[in-house]
Formats: sequence, structure tokens, C-alpha cells
Amino acid sequence: MTVTDPYEKVLNLNTMNPLIKNVEYAVRGQLAIRAEEIKKDLAEGKEYPFSRVVNCNIGNPQQLNQKPITFFRQVSSLCDNPDLLRKENRSIVSQLYPTDAIERANKLMTSVGSVGSYSHSQGVPAIRHTVSQFIKERDGYASSPDHIFLTQGASSGVQTLLSMITQNSNSGIMIPIPQYPLYSASLALYGATPVPYHLDEESGWSLDVHQLTDIVTRARQQGTDVRALVIINPGNPTGQCLTKENMRDIIDFCSHQRLILLADEVYQTNIYEPEERPFVSFKRALMDHPTFEVRESLELVSFHSISKGMIGECGRRGGYFECVNLDEKVLEQIYKMSSVSLCPNLHGQILVDLMCNPPRLGDESYEQYKREVESIYNSLRRRSRKLERLFNQMDGVSCQPAQGSMYLFPQVLLPEKVIHKATKLNMAPDAYYALAMLEATGVCVVPGSGFGQKEGVWHFRSTFLPEEHLFDEFCNALLQFHQDFIIQHS
Amino acid sequence: MTVTDPYEKVLNLNTMNPLIKNVEYAVRGQLAIRAEEIKKDLAEGKEYPFSRVVNCNIGNPQQLNQKPITFFRQVSSLCDNPDLLRKENRSIVSQLYPTDAIERANKLMTSVGSVGSYSHSQGVPAIRHTVSQFIKERDGYASSPDHIFLTQGASSGVQTLLSMITQNSNSGIMIPIPQYPLYSASLALYGATPVPYHLDEESGWSLDVHQLTDIVTRARQQGTDVRALVIINPGNPTGQCLTKENMRDIIDFCSHQRLILLADEVYQTNIYEPEERPFVSFKRALMDHPTFEVRESLELVSFHSISKGMIGECGRRGGYFECVNLDEKVLEQIYKMSSVSLCPNLHGQILVDLMCNPPRLGDESYEQYKREVESIYNSLRRRSRKLERLFNQMDGVSCQPAQGSMYLFPQVLLPEKVIHKATKLNMAPDAYYALAMLEATGVCVVPGSGFGQKEGVWHFRSTFLPEEHLFDEFCNALLQFHQDFIIQHS
Repeated sequence: MTVTDPYEKVLNLNTMNPLIKNVEYAVRGQLAIRAEEIKKDLAEGKEYPFSRVVNCNIGNPQQLNQKPITFFRQVSSLCDNPDLLRKENRSIVSQLYPTDAIERANKLMTSVGSVGSYSHSQGVPAIRHTVSQFIKERDGYASSPDHIFLTQGASSGVQTLLSMITQNSNSGIMIPIPQYPLYSASLALYGATPVPYHLDEESGWSLDVHQLTDIVTRARQQGTDVRALVIINPGNPTGQCLTKENMRDIIDFCSHQRLILLADEVYQTNIYEPEERPFVSFKRALMDHPTFEVRESLELVSFHSISKGMIGECGRRGGYFECVNLDEKVLEQIYKMSSVSLCPNLHGQILVDLMCNPPRLGDESYEQYKREVESIYNSLRRRSRKLERLFNQMDGVSCQPAQGSMYLFPQVLLPEKVIHKATKLNMAPDAYYALAMLEATGVCVVPGSGFGQKEGVWHFRSTFLPEEHLFDEFCNALLQFHQDFIIQHS
Repeated sequence: MTVTDPYEKVLNLNTMNPLIKNVEYAVRGQLAIRAEEIKKDLAEGKEYPFSRVVNCNIGNPQQLNQKPITFFRQVSSLCDNPDLLRKENRSIVSQLYPTDAIERANKLMTSVGSVGSYSHSQGVPAIRHTVSQFIKERDGYASSPDHIFLTQGASSGVQTLLSMITQNSNSGIMIPIPQYPLYSASLALYGATPVPYHLDEESGWSLDVHQLTDIVTRARQQGTDVRALVIINPGNPTGQCLTKENMRDIIDFCSHQRLILLADEVYQTNIYEPEERPFVSFKRALMDHPTFEVRESLELVSFHSISKGMIGECGRRGGYFECVNLDEKVLEQIYKMSSVSLCPNLHGQILVDLMCNPPRLGDESYEQYKREVESIYNSLRRRSRKLERLFNQMDGVSCQPAQGSMYLFPQVLLPEKVIHKATKLNMAPDAYYALAMLEATGVCVVPGSGFGQKEGVWHFRSTFLPEEHLFDEFCNALLQFHQDFIIQHS
């Protein structure tokens, strides 16, 4: 052995997995880390020009005091403490819980056994059955529980599929720009080649299908084995919702080019213009396709989650994906990989069951459930519009409306001085802007450079999740900051 | 484009990630799949020579009706339904919940906020603090919450570290044979090189440190960049518990050979000979080392979980790992990867808090907690001995006692006829034996070939988790099966 410094680490930046080193994930990057520091400072009494940090960097509704759906928590807590379901406790428990919550918990316990047990690696069969019924009701087409995999949130499902599809570093996956950085991060991790396509900001971040053929042709000419297309609908960070015609074109494109379609549909109930832009699932768009061969051959995987919508139970880590037209042998491989991870956590699985089969008209809990969902929905819509208007009032800022999702992605015209200063500091100009915003207002957003954007234009992504009663204060602070920042840097 | 069959899948066994195809995971392999089929058949009234399937293939205590710890479920369910914590419900709720559970839930809610929120990606800071206190009490040495990462079970933590350590396909990781197949599966997935070392069956599966130097030297001569050693203590599937002297030798070996030590310590409370073979953590063994340089330089990661011990909450997916002497820059990379997955589920995190800080002497719930833990522990110990005795009564079977963990790993002398038959069927002989056992008795075990074993000897792994009142029936069925099987194949 050669003589080495015993304090030199075996594992360091030079010896670690280089693919991991390449991963970037801005949603919890530098800005988020600084926000955590400020929170600690505030808790210790240190002075800032604001009294609290507002995390608009991440779609984390309950962190910003969005109330959980009562029925869901009732059922879940009964499953967690089955002593409450014992007959001798019935009279006390029924003072705290409605009958349908108790019945539902009993039913779930019959199929789950215990929330402390490993389940089937693909998810509890009865819960996968519930999901398949939900999909059937939503789309009007059959869905098989055997083709549904429960997951710990949509992210882990997306990662499973992307890693499965990556045969080698030539394997190409088309991803939107701007995109949710899970995609670029995962492709970096698996060593696949991202093949970006652009969403068009001026037309409300719509997807121009005509560009796609050029992009895939060019990538293939350059030797990339393009094999899948990722769509986020409704969009993240862009908030657009695709029309059915647009979806049909995308399906034709994928079918013609022999691409697997990965549809990230986690924001399917966050739809703010339901008349003009209702949500249509890619499963339904595919099954509505007039050509038998397309319906029967296009490989589609659709992802959903309990983290978004009006539910917002992201801390539980639950979700599912449905596979359409996938090779049975590939499904076996997905099952094998699920089994290495043993199973998705049962609390997440239970919430998937409740999301897919909520109280119905006539059920004891229905009115309250409906009221809660509508109240969150209406508030989200109001807040999205208020924030959009605010951004559009700012000098040099333009913001497309959110047709869906939980985000706005305004474009900011940054003065030359900012670009110079940021470059000197080795920062993206939009990161410099966002950091200044955080230090001045306590509002934490994510710089557009974390999602990808056209060269020379700058954005940031902000959720519209802060509590409604704080909204005016929050909007005023942002407006003031922006004015000051522009004056200071002009 | 070339003309292709439109029904040929884009993603198939030939085009998918070849590393995934190479992954093997026997714990939920062919046997487990057949067991599921039989369960379905039984539910539909089909006749078998037994009335139920007994899953001894996987450490899933609550599936086999082990009762969860009452206090843990009480606190967790209160966190799940914070309405129960409201003042106006106090008088009713206190009929169902002891005061210390209510207080603990209130305390957790203060630091967690909501179980529906994403937490810090590394885990709730207050819960990491609890873990660090637990480690300090256990070992007598300080532990920093900044070096603790909460995970969704130990498996996901192990995978994070193994992927981090794998720089390229030359990166070698020493793993025990027999081993829990998570390790071989993960190394196959990341494309690293397994460097196996053997546990010695005759001496109760002890680890002979002298072989290790030869193995690492030979592997390095062959060009493998050996950089880490995995130890499972107490052992899985082998049940041994290392002596402190043995651990010291392993630490010296790793230090001398510049290897990272990965210590899988999830069975640390499943200790059945506490006088002769108490559990000592590798953290403590390292901190007790007389040489300053070793203490300050050996890179150690230790994994723990809520899934095992007397807790058995594996369906919740919770755990943690502690990093000792790791490069700060590497810790940042681990944090980054944790943040791509957002956070471990909150229900798992809460259970980690409870595991690390259970009721104490003087607390209202202490007596019940103690009674429950002791009852499970004593029963596990009785069952481990009963099953060990049973295996040793069987013709041609020899079984080492379980000093720890939840498994026995008996060796079975299989007649030549079995080996011929199995080879013809393209099966491992021990898989043939285990399948025959399943079909005859409903007992599902895992063939030794799934864990690795010396050439020409055959084993199977069985948990000793079936309920104690079923044990005699279960033991008789196994004894009868083995007799019949041997007669039939001689």
C-alpha cells in the first residue's frame, strides 16, 4: 500500500459517484438553505425586516396551515389506533368520529391488516382496486389493479420509470423546459440524456407540437436513442393545462416516433379555469383516440399523488402510477424493484384509498368533505389570481395566469447591473434577485434557472399557498421589495 | 425511420436498464409469489393440505398478529387527528388516551406542524435531536443531529450510501455471505462489484477477520477498488451477534485497509443471549478504540429502523442512519439527494422519535410499555429456541442458535435425487425443497441460495414469528413434511 494521509476521507467529492455530484435540485437548494438559517435566527430573536419566513419555494400546503380534510384524518387515525375500533369503546368513540369514518376504517383494516405490516410490494390489492375504480369513473375506461403500483409519492414512481427506461447514457428522454427539476435531477442520476423541448410563454406556456419532430430528429441524428417524452399536465412550474386537441397531437407524435409517454398528472384537480381548460387525463385522451393501433400500442405511464390537489398530504408520501400497454415482462421487473424497497408506507396507501374514494352524496361526512374541498379550492383560485395580478403590476414583470397547479412563473426583466453583479458572485441573476427578495421580505421563491428557461430571460417560481389573511401584507412586501430592488440596481 | 412492428414494445427486456435486469431479490421472489397465489386459492375455497399460508419468508411481525406497542400507536393517532388534541375534546379523549400520550403528541405537533407537511429533507430537527440523545445514552458518546438522516426504513438509507460510494463498476464493496439480498441487489443496481467474505457456520456464523486481508488484497490485485465493508450485526439471515473483540478487529482491519464501514444494526434489540452476547454498536466500539487516529478517521455509517426489535412497525417505513467521520461535503451531497426525494414520511419519523424516547420509569404508560416489550421479547426468544430445536431434530438438518435478529438459517442435507430433479427444472435444490415445503405445509421460507452460501451446501431462512399458539401445529407440519420429503427422494 502507498502511504496516505489517514485523515483523507475514503469517500470525498473526488471519489464519490460522479452522477450524484452532477445532480442539481434547486427547490431545496441555496435559497431554501438560507431560509432555514433565517428561521433559526428569528427563533433566537435576531432582527430581520420581517417577522416570519414564508416558504413559497415548495408546494407544501399544510406547512402554510392549509387544513387537512377531516374525514381523511379521521379514518387514518382510526386505522392507526385500532383500539378505538373495539366494541367496548364504541360509545365514546362515536362522540368523536362519524359512523362512516368508523365503517371505512373497519373496511380498510380488513384489507390492510395492520398499518405496521409490510403490504404487497405493489400496494394493498384492495387499495389498488379502489384506484382502478377511480380511474374508470374519471375516464370512462377500464383500468386493471394489476397495472397500478402504489408509491411513496409521485417522485419515487417517476424515478422508478426513468431508471427502468435508461439503458445507457445514450438513452434520451424528452423533458419540457421549464420543468420540475425532479426530471433533470433523475436523468443526471441515472446518466440518461435529457432532450429538452420548450413551452411557449407568450401563449400561456402551451406546447407547440410542431417543434417536437425537429427536436427528436436532430437528437437521433446526433446518436441519442430518444425513447420517452415527459409531460407535466397541469404544468409545474408553468401552470398551463393542455387542451384535448393538443393532447391528441402529442399522442400521435409519440406513437409515430415510438416514444413512451410519461404523464405527470399530480395537479389534476388544481384546475382554475374548469370551463375553458378542464383536466383530461392522458389515459382518457389515449382511449378516445380513433385509431385502434394507437390505443393498443402507445406505452403510457401516468402518475398521481396525495400531495397536491385540495388534499395536500405531501408529508405522508403517497401516490400511484398506472401503466398502459407496458410489456408484461417489464411490469414484472417493476414489481421486482418495488419488492427490493419492500412496500410503500401504509399511511400513504390509506390516503390514496381515501383520495380515490372520498365520501359520496348521502354519506354522513359528505357535506363537510364537500365544504372543505370547495373552500380550499376557491381560496386557491382567488390567491392565484391575486398573486398573478400583483406580479403583473410590478415594473418589468409579466406573469401568465395559472390554469392549473399551485405555481406562478413570472418573468422578470433584470437590469444590466444585476446581471453584472450576479456574474461576479458566480450566481444566476435570477438567484441573485430571489436571494435579495428573501433577505428583504422573508419570502422564499425558486429562481427560474432551477427549472430551465430560454437564454437571457429570467423567472422565479412562487406557490400561491400562503394563508389568505396574510396575503395583503405579503403582496405589499413583495411590491415594495421589487420597486426598491429595481431602483437600487438601475 | 425503419419499419417496425407497432406492437413491439419500446420498453422491453432487451431495451431496459440492464442493471435492473440483473437485480435478484429472493425474499419476495418465486416462493413468495406462489404463496400469494395459494392465499388467493384458499380464499376462493380451493383445497390444500393446510388451511392457511404462514409467511416465514419475511420479517413482518404484525402480519403474523404481533401487537403494536400501545403507547406508540396512541401518540401517532393523536398526531394524525389533531382534532383530538383540542381543548373541547379533552374530557372525552382522556377516557381513551393516557395523559402522557396526549402530552407527547402535543410536543411532537409543536415540532412537526402537521404530519401532512413535508419536513426538513433530513428529517424533523427535533426528531433528529431525539435520535442523537438515544445514541448518546446507548453508547456513552456524543452524537450530532446534523449527522443523522431519517429515512423510509433502513433499506433506503443503505441504498443511498451504496449509490454514493459507487464511483464506477470497479468500486468494490465487501459483503458477508450469507447476506440479506438488499446488498447484492443494490450493488447489481448501481453496477458496483461485490467482494464477498464468508461467515463461518460451524462457529455459529462468526466472522473470521483473518480471511478479510487475503480477500481485500486479492480483489485489489485484480483491479477492484475496494472501499467499503458491510456488516450486518446481529446477522441476517444468520442471527449471530459479534463480540466486542471481533468488532475491534474489524475496525482495525477497516482502518488499516482504508475501508468505509457500513453497519446494519437494525436488529440491535433482538438479542437472545444478552449476558454472553450483548449488542454493542459499532459507534461505541469505534469510540472505545484506544487509538485517537482510528477514532477520528474511520468512516462509519450505522443504520437503524422501526421495523424490527419489539416494535415491528415495518409497514410505516421509518428509520435513520448516523454518519461518523464522513466528509462534510459528502454529507451535503447526501442532503441534496434526500431533498430530491423531499422527505421521509412523517408517520415513520414520529415512530423513530417514539422508539428513541419511549415511556420512562415513572411515566403513566411505562408499566404497560414495559410489559408489552417484555412479553414480545420473551415470546420471540422462546420461539427462536423451539424452532431451533425442531430443525435440529430433523434428519440431516443442522441449525445454529439465533443469538440475535428474527431468523434461523438451518443447513439441509439434500439427497442426490433432489439435486438431479432440481437441476432438471432449472431450480436451485434448496428452492425445490422450499417450494415442496410450501405446497405441503403452507409455510413459506426463503431458499439459502437467495442469500449466498458455500458451494454444495443448502439452507433456508425462516423467521420465528408465527404466533405462539400456532407453533406446535406449525412445527409438527414441518417435521412431517421433512420426513416425507426425505423418504420420497431417497
